Amino acid sequence: MSGSNISIDGKRLLADLYRLREFGTYKTGVHRPTFSPVDMDSRRWLMERMRDAGLEPEIDGIGNVLGRGAGDGPRLLLGSHTETQPHAGWLDGALGVMYALEVARAVGRGIDVVAWADEEGHYGSFLGSRSYVGDVSEADIDAARNRHENKTLREALAEAGLAGKPRLHFEPGRYKGFLEAHIEQGDALEAAGLKIGVVTSIVGIWQYRVNFEGVQNHAGTTRMAIRKDAGVALMRLFAAIEAKFPTICAEKTVWTVGKILLDPGAASIVPGGAEMMFQFRDADPAVLARLEAALQALVAEADASGPCKVILHTLSRSTPKMMDEGFRAALDRAAERFAPGLHQRMPSGAGHDAQQLARVMPAAMLFVPSIGGISHHWSENTADEDIVLGCQVMAAAAADILARG
Amino acid sequence: MSGSNISIDGKRLLADLYRLREFGTYKTGVHRPTFSPVDMDSRRWLMERMRDAGLEPEIDGIGNVLGRGAGDGPRLLLGSHTETQPHAGWLDGALGVMYALEVARAVGRGIDVVAWADEEGHYGSFLGSRSYVGDVSEADIDAARNRHENKTLREALAEAGLAGKPRLHFEPGRYKGFLEAHIEQGDALEAAGLKIGVVTSIVGIWQYRVNFEGVQNHAGTTRMAIRKDAGVALMRLFAAIEAKFPTICAEKTVWTVGKILLDPGAASIVPGGAEMMFQFRDADPAVLARLEAALQALVAEADASGPCKVILHTLSRSTPKMMDEGFRAALDRAAERFAPGLHQRMPSGAGHDAQQLARVMPAAMLFVPSIGGISHHWSENTADEDIVLGCQVMAAAAADILARG
Repeated sequence: MSGSNISIDGKRLLADLYRLREFGTYKTGVHRPTFSPVDMDSRRWLMERMRDAGLEPEIDGIGNVLGRGAGDGPRLLLGSHTETQPHAGWLDGALGVMYALEVARAVGRGIDVVAWADEEGHYGSFLGSRSYVGDVSEADIDAARNRHENKTLREALAEAGLAGKPRLHFEPGRYKGFLEAHIEQGDALEAAGLKIGVVTSIVGIWQYRVNFEGVQNHAGTTRMAIRKDAGVALMRLFAAIEAKFPTICAEKTVWTVGKILLDPGAASIVPGGAEMMFQFRDADPAVLARLEAALQALVAEADASGPCKVILHTLSRSTPKMMDEGFRAALDRAAERFAPGLHQRMPSGAGHDAQQLARVMPAAMLFVPSIGGISHHWSENTADEDIVLGCQVMAAAAADILARG
Repeated sequence: MSGSNISIDGKRLLADLYRLREFGTYKTGVHRPTFSPVDMDSRRWLMERMRDAGLEPEIDGIGNVLGRGAGDGPRLLLGSHTETQPHAGWLDGALGVMYALEVARAVGRGIDVVAWADEEGHYGSFLGSRSYVGDVSEADIDAARNRHENKTLREALAEAGLAGKPRLHFEPGRYKGFLEAHIEQGDALEAAGLKIGVVTSIVGIWQYRVNFEGVQNHAGTTRMAIRKDAGVALMRLFAAIEAKFPTICAEKTVWTVGKILLDPGAASIVPGGAEMMFQFRDADPAVLARLEAALQALVAEADASGPCKVILHTLSRSTPKMMDEGFRAALDRAAERFAPGLHQRMPSGAGHDAQQLARVMPAAMLFVPSIGGISHHWSENTADEDIVLGCQVMAAAAADILARG
């Protein structure tokens, strides 16, 4: 196969990852919020490493760092993101960017390396990659605020020295496609004893807020029979979801109640209001639609049977994104060469920049195992040999795709 | 019957209640937190009204206002409290104190009038009446803080000019007993078209905190089968309580989940921790014990079956307090005379100062209807004619009890 003669430098890759971890070290993880001084330091360091690798680096008006590689022939864009969740892991995002840089060095030509800004959503959601594909307006930037502190995106961009810089946009025809490597963030590979996951699709995430309106009352003097307890209504709806969803979901569907609020939330007061954040994820649009129809029916039934009013608000519905079949096949072949029998195809339950890029060009992803399935926590980790193996597979696949012209 | 020739002055009673509402008026209700300037103004006004009525007023070191009436013979203590919950109703507590004053004026002798401090628990729980019965130590006062703002009870007492004043204590032999009138705070009287409730007992309130310990994880990458979702564990325990409690409760048992917290409480994170505030109330100690045993069994079952750890913390267990049968009979007779066929016996689902007094002397309570069952809200109200009727019944019952020697 093409690309099989490409060999990455595992020590150089690990040294770069260790160095990147020093920007905002927290225990064995990292605290590197988007546009913080330490985040900007890490972006400038990344640009230096790109220059050292023979790439032409540039930072744009939203913080995206792009390193353009030499070569006039077919070209791939590789990367991920470098900022982190608060007090989170050292590999989430960073791994994919350092893979991209190492692959550029190993393959030698035809590779551009990118670190998308704010995939982690300190100021939005996939801010950098969405900006690149043309889905972030100036008005969106005007309106965006930090979700953890009281700062506007405009203020943060000015402090970071990015105010007034132009934003990079997708150049039609420049790339054959986009490749992103990432830690799995789940335990499927580890549980199966596998080393490489070739992502088939990135799941759709459908998110809802359910509000329950009852009547606030005294928890001692209000008879059970006449209560309109919004908290009870919430828990009953959840019980109905728990009974229904397993009968209509697909094998890898997940659903989550992440947040519950009772109003006023005092021991001796029957709650008059309640709110639930609910979401489900699946790779199949038909499954998502079926789950939504069931949710709507359960909410309507709860609302009609009373005693509380139940209102369903749709917050977002992302479309599942299929990964490119040609790229997947190249990843399969490279995985079979360097990790024979130790790879599988699998959907991504988490969102990634690749889903934004997939809107404008072929895209694919490779996963490496997460120890204990842990992510978004400082203890997140992957064995060094798994890190090196994943990059070797990525390099071979990239070379293979480029060789096919 | 004795006492039937006693007649109260309804206009005077209502005028006093209207005047008391002016201390901290909020919409049609009142905001009069314990020891606030407006609360202390109202206590001084009350002492003046006591003096006008021929009583000898005194305020003690915890804010209790006691007006001693003339007469050497048998003596009753009547009253309730005058401070309010934040932005709450004008009658809760105030009604019972103004009834006491009007009854003292109407009966003429043998009545002491009291306004217990902080029944509403800004600094504790039944602070004034518990102090009176000997259940509040100086160390308790040292430790108490305001539950809404950052102020110690000692600071509040000093600002109110009460620091160093002695506290009043129960004088054995002085009273035949204690009578308290109160709004019902529920809708039982109104729903039945009745005017007077004669309280049989004040329910016991047993309160718990239930903690659920799971594992926080990514809501996209963590398969349903391996989740340890603390929020799901909470809702499943509640479903088990909902299935069990109706089969073992008594007719008037109530139970409430007043507060739920999920940790960290974010849309895309499987909650690793959860907490539920749970309480139940009943007038029968055997019922309370049966419910607790069932709760313990359900928690143990949930904990044993996993996947989350479930821990039950008992916060408080108050003993139901029976009201005095002789006093109840006197209230029945007076109610039958002034509201024939329009009264009933009923338990109190809320706590009242009378339950503290019942620890040291016979005690009884009378309820008047709450419009719509609303209380602890500024719109709380009772029809003027119901207010006047209740006071007439109270006066007749008090005179009857005193006449029986």
